[in-house]
Amino acid sequence: MSTTTAPSVPGVDPSPGETASVRTARARSAEVEALIAHDPRRFRVLTGDRPTGPLHLGHLVGTVENRVRLQDAGVDVVVVVADYQVITDRDDPGDLPAAVRDVVLDQLAAGLDPARSTIFAHSAVPALHQLLLPFLALVTVAELERNPTVKAEAVDAARRQGRGMSGLLLTYPVHQAADILAVHGNLVPVGTDQLPHLETTRTVARRFNQRFTAAQPYFAEPDALLTDTPTILGNDGEKMSKSRGNVLELRASDDATAAYFRRARTDGDRHITFDPEQRPEVANLLRLGAHFAGTTPQDLAESVGSAGAGRLKEVVTDAVVEGLRPLRARRRDLAADAPAVVADALGRGAARVNAIADATLQDVRELMRTVY
Amino acid sequence: MSTTTAPSVPGVDPSPGETASVRTARARSAEVEALIAHDPRRFRVLTGDRPTGPLHLGHLVGTVENRVRLQDAGVDVVVVVADYQVITDRDDPGDLPAAVRDVVLDQLAAGLDPARSTIFAHSAVPALHQLLLPFLALVTVAELERNPTVKAEAVDAARRQGRGMSGLLLTYPVHQAADILAVHGNLVPVGTDQLPHLETTRTVARRFNQRFTAAQPYFAEPDALLTDTPTILGNDGEKMSKSRGNVLELRASDDATAAYFRRARTDGDRHITFDPEQRPEVANLLRLGAHFAGTTPQDLAESVGSAGAGRLKEVVTDAVVEGLRPLRARRRDLAADAPAVVADALGRGAARVNAIADATLQDVRELMRTVY
Repeated sequence: MSTTTAPSVPGVDPSPGETASVRTARARSAEVEALIAHDPRRFRVLTGDRPTGPLHLGHLVGTVENRVRLQDAGVDVVVVVADYQVITDRDDPGDLPAAVRDVVLDQLAAGLDPARSTIFAHSAVPALHQLLLPFLALVTVAELERNPTVKAEAVDAARRQGRGMSGLLLTYPVHQAADILAVHGNLVPVGTDQLPHLETTRTVARRFNQRFTAAQPYFAEPDALLTDTPTILGNDGEKMSKSRGNVLELRASDDATAAYFRRARTDGDRHITFDPEQRPEVANLLRLGAHFAGTTPQDLAESVGSAGAGRLKEVVTDAVVEGLRPLRARRRDLAADAPAVVADALGRGAARVNAIADATLQDVRELMRTVY
Repeated sequence: MSTTTAPSVPGVDPSPGETASVRTARARSAEVEALIAHDPRRFRVLTGDRPTGPLHLGHLVGTVENRVRLQDAGVDVVVVVADYQVITDRDDPGDLPAAVRDVVLDQLAAGLDPARSTIFAHSAVPALHQLLLPFLALVTVAELERNPTVKAEAVDAARRQGRGMSGLLLTYPVHQAADILAVHGNLVPVGTDQLPHLETTRTVARRFNQRFTAAQPYFAEPDALLTDTPTILGNDGEKMSKSRGNVLELRASDDATAAYFRRARTDGDRHITFDPEQRPEVANLLRLGAHFAGTTPQDLAESVGSAGAGRLKEVVTDAVVEGLRPLRARRRDLAADAPAVVADALGRGAARVNAIADATLQDVRELMRTVY
C-alpha cells in the first residue's frame, strides 16, 4: 500500500473540457497542498462514506488512502459514517450495524488512527442536525433542484425503483453543509463531480455570515481538495461499484483476489501496453498493479511485454496481494475484537464531534439571537 | 374571558361545501372531546406559534383560550415557540428575544401554567430536529409541493418579497411532524386549513411504522382537534393579522382598546342585527362583545337595537376591557419580572421536552438499528 506517497499533483493533466470552476478548484487545491506541507494543523478535513457494505479497492485507492495520507501529514481528519444517507434513495437500509462495522474496520485497517483522527456515526450528533433548520432557510428549492448530483441521484432512484425524489435526497447538499460547518471543516476532498455539493456548503456559509453576523464572518467557506485519482474500474471494465457486483473487497482472501483478477476483462492484443484511451481494461489493471507495486503503469507494461494478459493478471494479483497484506492482517486482528474496537472508535468520535457541534450550535444560537 | 366555557361543539354547523376529509376530522373531533371529558390524561396536545410579536385578540379567541381550556381539563399541553419558523419566509427574524418574551408572557397571562403545561423554544431541542432526517426520507418532494399550506405560503412569499420558496418552507410539514412525534403528541388543535399539515404527520408516522417496526406500531397517528371558532376580523373588516396592522394586542391599554373599537368599520344601517353574511363587520363586533360578556351575538344585538354602531362599539369596548382585565393585570405583574419569568418557563419547558425527545430519538435509533 502506498498511503505515504503523495497523490498525483492537482494542476497536472486537466481534462481539456473542464469548466472554469473546476480549473479554479484545481488551482486552489495545489495551493492547499503546499499549505498542508507547511502547516497541516490549520486544516480540518470533513469527509465520509455511506455505510452500504465492506469497502473495496475503489474506495481505498480513490479516497481512503488520501485520508490516511492527510492524517499522517498532521491534518485533523474527521470521517462521518453517513448512516442516515443510506435511506436517501432506498427503503431498506439493510444490516446497518454490520455495514457500519465493516466501514469502520476497513478504515482502521487502512491506517486511520482513532487516536489522531475522528470517525463518527452521523446519527450520533443531534446538534449537527439542528443546523439543518437555519441552513435550509438560506437556500431555495430551485437551487437544490439544480444541484447536478441531486438530479443524477433522483434520476437513478426513479429508474431503479420507480420512485419520486425523497425530501432527504433533495436536501442532501444542506445536510452536507451541516456536517462540514458543524465541525468547522475547512477542507473537503472531492472528485470533480462533487464540486456542486461543496458549492452549496460555501453558499450556506456565506449567506449565514451575511445574514446573521455583523462584523467578522463566523463560518469559513471550506476549500475543495480535488482528488485526481483516476476512477478504478471493476473486473468487467465498468466503474467499480457494489451495485454492479464487480468489486474486490479489501477484506477478500488472497485466493479470492487471484480469482477476481483471473476473471478480469482484457482485450485481444497479447502485447501489453499502457493506453488508457484505446485499452481501458488493460490500463486499469496496469494502474492497479503499479499503484501497489510502487512503480508506473508504463514500466509495469514494459515488464510484462508480450507475455500476455494472463501474465499481467498474475503480476497484478501479486502486487495487490502483497500491497494489501498488512491491511488484511490488521483487519483480521481488529475483526477479532470487532464489537469493542468499533464501539470504542465510534464512541470517541461521537464524543469529540458532539463537543464541537454543541459549541457550534451554541454560537449559532447566539448569532441568531435564539438564546432566551 | 371565557376560558372555562366549552368551545362551539365540533360537528355543529359544518360549511355546506366542506370536503369528506374535513367531515371525517370533524366527527373524530367530537369523539375526542367526549374522550377528554372522560379521561383527559390519555391526551398530549402539541401546538404552537411563530413568535412574530405580541399576541392579539385573534390569537386569544382562536387558539390560546382553547389551550388553556384543554390544560384546565387535565390534558397535557405542550406549546412550541417556533422561533426557527420565523425565517421560513423572511430574511430578518426581527427582535426574536423580545418577540419570544411577548409570546410567553401573553400565554402565561392568559392562563397557561408552566407547572402543568409545557412551553419551549423550538431551537432548544436538538434531538427533535434530528428526527427530520429519517422523516424526510419518508415523503417525496412532490408530496411536499402539493401541500396546500406550503403552496399558499410560497405564493405569498413570492408576491411580497419576490423570492423563491426556501428549503425550510418546503420541508415545514416535516418539521411539524418532528415536533409532534418527538413528544408523542396525539392531539393537535387545528383549523380546517391546517388539516393537510397534520396529514403529513400522520403519513410520516404510518410510513415510519411500516418501514422500521416489525410488530406493533411505534408512533401513534395524531388526531386533529378541529377548532370551530369563527375567524376574528380586525377593525378594518379584514382577517386580524399583524401584517395588516389591524390587530388589538392583548397587552393594549384600556384607552387604546377604546380607540381601536372607535375606529372599527361598520355599515350604514343604524339598527344593529346579527347577520354574518350581509353584515360581517357588525357581526364580528357582536361576536367579540358576546364572547367576552358571556352572552350570544343575537342577544347582544337585541340589547343595542337601534342605538346604532356608536353604542355597539361602546358595549363591545366595555366587554373586552372587562374580559381582558384579569389577563392584563397578570401580564403587567409578569412583565415586571419578565426576564426571570420567561427564562424559568422556557427553561422548564426545554428540560422536559429534551428529556422526552431524547428518549424518542433513542427509541428511533434502536428501531432503525443505528446503535453501534
